[in-house]
Amino acid sequence: MKSFKPRFAQQLNSNQPLRIIPLGGVGDVTKNMYIYEYGEDIIIVDCGVGFPDDAMPGVDLVIPDINYLRDKINKIRGIIITHGHEDHIGSLPYLWPQIQAPIYTQRLTAGFIKAKFTEHNLAKDKIIEVKIDQTINLGNFQVSFYQVSHSVPDSMGIVIRTPQGLIIHQADFKIDWTPVSGQVTDVGRVAQLGNEKVLLLLIDCLRVEKPGFNKSEKSIESSFEQAAIETPGKLLITTTSSNVSRMQQAINVAHRLGRKVAVVGRSFENNFQVARDLGYLQVPPGIMIAPDTIQGFEPRKVLVLIAGAQGQSDSSLARAANDGHRQVKLKKGDSVVFSADPIPSTESAQNALVDSLSRLGLNVYYSAVNSELHVSGHAALEELRLMVNLIKPKFMFPIGGTFRHMKAFSKMAQELGYKDTQILDAEDGDVLEIMNENIKLAGKIDVQNIYVDGLGIGDIGHVVLRDRHKMSEEGVVVVVVSVDKHTSQIVSEVDIISRGFVFEEMAKDLLDEARDVVKEALQKHPQKISDWRFIRRIIEDALDKFLYKSTQRRPLILSVVVES
Amino acid sequence: MKSFKPRFAQQLNSNQPLRIIPLGGVGDVTKNMYIYEYGEDIIIVDCGVGFPDDAMPGVDLVIPDINYLRDKINKIRGIIITHGHEDHIGSLPYLWPQIQAPIYTQRLTAGFIKAKFTEHNLAKDKIIEVKIDQTINLGNFQVSFYQVSHSVPDSMGIVIRTPQGLIIHQADFKIDWTPVSGQVTDVGRVAQLGNEKVLLLLIDCLRVEKPGFNKSEKSIESSFEQAAIETPGKLLITTTSSNVSRMQQAINVAHRLGRKVAVVGRSFENNFQVARDLGYLQVPPGIMIAPDTIQGFEPRKVLVLIAGAQGQSDSSLARAANDGHRQVKLKKGDSVVFSADPIPSTESAQNALVDSLSRLGLNVYYSAVNSELHVSGHAALEELRLMVNLIKPKFMFPIGGTFRHMKAFSKMAQELGYKDTQILDAEDGDVLEIMNENIKLAGKIDVQNIYVDGLGIGDIGHVVLRDRHKMSEEGVVVVVVSVDKHTSQIVSEVDIISRGFVFEEMAKDLLDEARDVVKEALQKHPQKISDWRFIRRIIEDALDKFLYKSTQRRPLILSVVVES
Repeated sequence: MKSFKPRFAQQLNSNQPLRIIPLGGVGDVTKNMYIYEYGEDIIIVDCGVGFPDDAMPGVDLVIPDINYLRDKINKIRGIIITHGHEDHIGSLPYLWPQIQAPIYTQRLTAGFIKAKFTEHNLAKDKIIEVKIDQTINLGNFQVSFYQVSHSVPDSMGIVIRTPQGLIIHQADFKIDWTPVSGQVTDVGRVAQLGNEKVLLLLIDCLRVEKPGFNKSEKSIESSFEQAAIETPGKLLITTTSSNVSRMQQAINVAHRLGRKVAVVGRSFENNFQVARDLGYLQVPPGIMIAPDTIQGFEPRKVLVLIAGAQGQSDSSLARAANDGHRQVKLKKGDSVVFSADPIPSTESAQNALVDSLSRLGLNVYYSAVNSELHVSGHAALEELRLMVNLIKPKFMFPIGGTFRHMKAFSKMAQELGYKDTQILDAEDGDVLEIMNENIKLAGKIDVQNIYVDGLGIGDIGHVVLRDRHKMSEEGVVVVVVSVDKHTSQIVSEVDIISRGFVFEEMAKDLLDEARDVVKEALQKHPQKISDWRFIRRIIEDALDKFLYKSTQRRPLILSVVVES
Repeated sequence: MKSFKPRFAQQLNSNQPLRIIPLGGVGDVTKNMYIYEYGEDIIIVDCGVGFPDDAMPGVDLVIPDINYLRDKINKIRGIIITHGHEDHIGSLPYLWPQIQAPIYTQRLTAGFIKAKFTEHNLAKDKIIEVKIDQTINLGNFQVSFYQVSHSVPDSMGIVIRTPQGLIIHQADFKIDWTPVSGQVTDVGRVAQLGNEKVLLLLIDCLRVEKPGFNKSEKSIESSFEQAAIETPGKLLITTTSSNVSRMQQAINVAHRLGRKVAVVGRSFENNFQVARDLGYLQVPPGIMIAPDTIQGFEPRKVLVLIAGAQGQSDSSLARAANDGHRQVKLKKGDSVVFSADPIPSTESAQNALVDSLSRLGLNVYYSAVNSELHVSGHAALEELRLMVNLIKPKFMFPIGGTFRHMKAFSKMAQELGYKDTQILDAEDGDVLEIMNENIKLAGKIDVQNIYVDGLGIGDIGHVVLRDRHKMSEEGVVVVVVSVDKHTSQIVSEVDIISRGFVFEEMAKDLLDEARDVVKEALQKHPQKISDWRFIRRIIEDALDKFLYKSTQRRPLILSVVVES
C-alpha cells in the first residue's frame, strides 16, 4: 500500500475518466479479455480464446482483436489472469508476444500458461505467480485478489482499486462449501469488500437461468464409483481438460476399485502433468499407465481419462468412437461417462457423440439420464444473489454469458431492487467511461473476430468465410476459357468442372448445356473480349442464371480466362 | 372381419415369414418409413422426411431410400400414415409418384397431405380418409386403428393383424387426459388389444429419458396468457408448424385480451388454413389479420404465430431477428415465446436464435427460464411404462429415437421384467423376419440417405458432400496450366486462384510461390506432359504438400490443363 497511496491521491485530482473496454467475453461466453485504462496506465484482465461456431467453418480458434492496444503497448502495466481455463488464458501464446507485459496469476494457472509458452517457444520470465493475499501496484491501479471456487483450482476474484473507485472483476466462480480442491469462495473477504462501497461489479452470469444452488463438486465421486462398479469393461471418463478435481475423483475411484488410469488427449495430458507436478493432484504410486499400454490390461482394470467432452469431432473420444484411435479401442462392455455439460453451440456435437457411442453398444452415462455426473463451475441463481448481496455494488456488468443470460441477469438484479440503468448492457468493443461514480457508454471501438486457422492468424476474414460457407452449401463451378491473344477469339473448348455441386456423372447434360451457355454469352459480346474482367463477369452472370434456373442452387462460380 | 378371416387362415398354412424393414426412423428420430411384407403383399407405415445435419451442408431435406421397393411396386397394397408431422408425411410428394398406392389416414392428416399434393401438382384421389374405428383389409394384412394424443390432432396407433401374429405400430404418442384437441389416448382399446396376445410392439422411444408424466397440453394456455399480459408490444409465438393445439391456445388468448392474430411462415400458414377449413380450429370472426397489415396495428394489439421454433436460419422468425422480414419488424417491447423444445441436432440453432432476439432487447420466453411454455408430444417414462403394461407384447422395437434413446428404452424394459433379447436393436435397412412367434435379423438391405437440394432429388451423394465439407473447412485452390498441343510445353503463366482459403491480398507471396512450385513440378516430368491425368496428379500432389507445409491447411485443389 505504501507506494500506492500518494499516486492514487495525486491522480484523483486530475480527474480523468476510467475506461473499461471488453475486447471479448460479453455476449459470447468465451474469448474473455477486458481492458482497464486510466491516463497512462492500462491493465488487462484475462486473455482467452473463443471456439468457432457454424458460421466459421475450418477455423480452429478465435482470438480477441487487440488493435486498440497497438499504439498503447507501453502503457500496459500487466495482465491479470483469473483462472486457467482456455477461454481465459488460451490467447496468450498468440497475443502476449505483441504485449510482453508481466502476467500475474496464481500458481496452477501460471503452470498451465508456462506449459503453453514452452510449446510456443516463448520466454516465461514474465509469468509471475501471485499469492492470494498479495497486493500489486500497477501504475494507477492497485490490484488484489480473493479465492473463489470454480471447476479448476486457483481461481480468483480480482479487486481493482482505481482513482475512480473500487471495481470487482468476478469472472467464473461458484459457491461450493465442500469443493474437492478445498478452495472455498472467500465470502468473508467478499463481505468485507462489500462494506467498502464497490462502484462496479463485473460478474459471471452464465448460469443465471439455473434456479437454486449448485450441488457440490464432492457429489460427483460417488457417481464415478457407481459407473466403475457397473462397468465390466474399460471405464472412460471425459470432462473438460482442465478439470483437476474430476481427475482427482477419477483417480480416487480407480484406486479404490483397482483400476489403472491412462490419460488420453494432448491438452488433457498436458494439464494433468502440470497439475501433478505442482502438487494439485494426489496420484497413488503405480496407478498411472501410458495410453499405448491400455490394450495390455484387462478392460475391467482400466479407467481412461479422455478428452472430448464437448463432442469435438477431432477429439480423442470422437476418434475412438469412430474406431480411429490407435490406443483406445472401444468394445461392448466398456462405458463412457460424460462429466461435463455442453457449452452453448456444442450441444448438438455432444449429443451426436453420445449417440455414436450408444450405437456401438457401449453404456453411456450422460446428464439427461443421470444428473449426478456433473456440476457446473458457474454460480446458479441463488449463488449469484448471495454474491450480489455481499458486494452490494452500485453498478453491475454481467459478463461471460450470451445476451439471453445478460438479460436474465438484469431481470434477477431488478428483483433484488436494482434499477435497470444500474445493470450495464454493453457489447464487445463498447467503451465504458467511469467518472464521478457514474458510468456512461462513451463510444465504440471496432473489434473483429481474429481467426486462427492452421498456421495462419488473422489471414482469413469474413470474405473467406463467406466463400467457404457458400461452397459448403452449393459447391463450386470453375469455367476456363482460353483466348488467342492476337485474335481475341476462343481457341479451345470451354472447360467446366465442378465440385460439391452435382454428382458430375449424373449431370453431364447439365454441364454440356452450361458450356453452350458460356459460349453464347461470349458471342453476344465479341467486341469486348479483350477486357478480362468484363468477360469474367459476363460468364459468371450467365452461368449463375442458368444454373439457378436448372437446379435452384447457386454454386460459387470461378472463371479463368487464359490468354495463349 | 368377414373378408379377412378365410385368407388369413389360408396363408397361415403357407407359413411364410413376415418381414419388417425400417427404411428410416430408427436411430435418427425423423424420416420415418416402415415396410411390412408378407408374400405378395406389402404395406408401408409413414413416409417422412429427415432434416440435414452439419454433415450435409446445403441439403434441404433427406428422404428415405426406396430402392428395395423398385421391383415390388405392384405388391404395395397401401400406405398408412400415423399422423400429420413432416417426419411422417413429408416424403410423400417425392416418393408417392413412384409408388402410387392408396394412402390411408385420418381427416386432418389427409388434409395436410392434400395441401402438399396440390402444391406438387399430384393427383389426390388416392388419399383416403379413414375413421378411427374402421378396419381395412390390405392383402394379407388387416389394419385397424386407435386414437392417441400427440402434438397434432388425428394421431393414431396402427393395429396390424398378420398371418404371423398381431403387431402394434405405435409411432409418436403421449398420454394426456386433458388434451386441447379432446383426443385422449384410447387406453381402453389398447388394453383390449393387450389381452389378444400382441407379438410385437413398435413404440416411440424419444422421451424415455424424461422421468415421470408429461404435463397436459392444457397447461400451456395460461403461460401464453401471462406472456401476452406482460408484453407491451407485439407478442410472437413460435411452435411447430403443425401444432394445431398451440394455434388454438394462442387464438384463445388473443381473443380474450383483444389482440389480432397473424400467421407468418409458409408451412405455418398452410397448416393453419387446412386445420381451420376442416374445423380443427375455432377462430372468432374478425380476429385474423394478413401479415402485411401487421404494421398498421398498435403493437400491443397484435399476436403473431410465426414459423422458426427450431431456429432454422431461413425461417420467418430468424429473418425477422436479422431485420430481414418485410412484414414482421421487431422492436423493443415485443416478446417472443418459444413453445417448442429443440429436436436433436437443432439445439444450437435454437439457442443462437434466442440469443439474437435477446440482443435486440426483446423479452424472450424459452424453456430454460420457463418450463410451462411447452409440453412434449412424446410419452415420458411413466407413460411408456403404462403403455407397455397395457399392451404386454412379446417383443418390442423402440423407434423414433436416436441410439441412446433405444438403449435407455431397453434398460427401462428390462426393469419391467423383459429380457434384453426381447427388445429389438435394429437399424435402418435391417430385415427383421417373423416366423412362429420369433423374430430374427435376416439380413440387411443397403439404404442411403437421399438428399433433396433445390430441384435435385438424389443427384448429390457422399462424394459431393465430402467435397462441400472440405471446401467449407479449407477452401478451394484452382490451378490452370495451358499447354501447347504441338510442343507439349507450357505456353503461358500458370494461373492460381483461390476462394475460402486465404485472404488473397494478404497471401500474394504464398500464391506466387505456389506458382513456382507447380512449374518446378512440371519441369521434373517433361516427358509425360501429354498425359493429362498424370500432369494433374503431379500438380495437385506438389501443391497440396506445399500449401500444407506453409499453412497447415489442405484446400481442395482443382487443376485444369488447357490445350491450345
